[in-house]
Amino acid sequence: MITLYDLAVEGDRRPSPYCWRTKYVLKHKGLAWRDEPVGFTEKEKIAFAQSQTVPVIHDGATVVKDSWAIARHLDEAYPNNPLFANEAALSHARFVAGWADSVVQPALFPIIVGDLYERVRPADQAYFRETRGKRIGTTDFAGFQKAARDKGVVAFRTVLEPARRVLKEQAFLAGAKPAYPDYALAGSLLWAHIASPLVLLEPDDPVYAWRERMLDLFDGLGRKAKAA
Amino acid sequence: MITLYDLAVEGDRRPSPYCWRTKYVLKHKGLAWRDEPVGFTEKEKIAFAQSQTVPVIHDGATVVKDSWAIARHLDEAYPNNPLFANEAALSHARFVAGWADSVVQPALFPIIVGDLYERVRPADQAYFRETRGKRIGTTDFAGFQKAARDKGVVAFRTVLEPARRVLKEQAFLAGAKPAYPDYALAGSLLWAHIASPLVLLEPDDPVYAWRERMLDLFDGLGRKAKAA
Repeated sequence: MITLYDLAVEGDRRPSPYCWRTKYVLKHKGLAWRDEPVGFTEKEKIAFAQSQTVPVIHDGATVVKDSWAIARHLDEAYPNNPLFANEAALSHARFVAGWADSVVQPALFPIIVGDLYERVRPADQAYFRETRGKRIGTTDFAGFQKAARDKGVVAFRTVLEPARRVLKEQAFLAGAKPAYPDYALAGSLLWAHIASPLVLLEPDDPVYAWRERMLDLFDGLGRKAKAA
Repeated sequence: MITLYDLAVEGDRRPSPYCWRTKYVLKHKGLAWRDEPVGFTEKEKIAFAQSQTVPVIHDGATVVKDSWAIARHLDEAYPNNPLFANEAALSHARFVAGWADSVVQPALFPIIVGDLYERVRPADQAYFRETRGKRIGTTDFAGFQKAARDKGVVAFRTVLEPARRVLKEQAFLAGAKPAYPDYALAGSLLWAHIASPLVLLEPDDPVYAWRERMLDLFDGLGRKAKAA
């Protein structure tokens, strides 16, 4: 049995975009897993993996950290429903995951940081203030978020344009069926969805319809998740 | 024999990023072509294709306009060295081309527009002033470019981050060998390279080394091009 160490905040919500990638990959591969919630400061729970961050998985005797390494491991270890069957699939996944990490999430962070902070466990608030405060240069997360939202939501929609162009032509970023590029972007949007009530997308946006499909996927894995 | 209608500016330079995509695709497929230069205002040369823009190709009796449609046509008509052999390759190409169109080129345009204007054929200058002036709200292209460059070059390097992350791991965006994603981004960078002497990339950037590989490709197709 696989164990997934998944970031948990107040009310047992699970916001981590990288843990979402892993959950989607597990479902894609048809694998069951045991879930282990980890607060921001419960580093001792994942110390066995020499990791400071989740996701981490325990797959039998094998320990893997980092969502990309986990996806590669699971795809190699379990042949069912391959994610990286050819070089194009692997390269596509790398590009879209790198884009989500370096563009989409940095565009989301300022407009949800106040809501995120409100949902962090009380025991983890000092840690969040310290680490995230350093990133944005203030610990007034509510004030920072308010200022960022004036232009930030429209700017965020613009950032999604490369995905939008693809989703005008096909149901998923990977084609007729979802695969790793979809899981990468879905993870980013679920992070916002779970941490913040902010309305990010307009209903006539092809990305909105795609997000609906992603929320429904795997018997509503994303839709059933406790949101803000 | 295939005829390619390719945008030409002063000194028979060929800056169009979309025409570059077509030239790379033709080479990738091992196809020879006859070249037909077209100035910005020589719309009558491509009127037969019901197109206002290049690239346009004449492939026997078949006329195709738009770089993406041309790539799809050539890949279907000529089985050699497929570009879109599977759904992942097609989806990857769509994403990266959409990213180059909607993010990379809009980030490049303000920092090269003055140099572009200097190289337009005298007969096409009024057309360029009219159409590009409308886009940026001024016809003082040199002044606009100067102001844009203060922050624009560093911002442009940041924009390339998704490609950079992939190119740290593999030689080309498509994997061990180049394919459409590489041709799409190479087209954008060749546009700048041919139109402007501006130094865009730092030598220690993985994107720089990749661009060198792209310039060398197909017996130096890009490197032999008359640059600024």
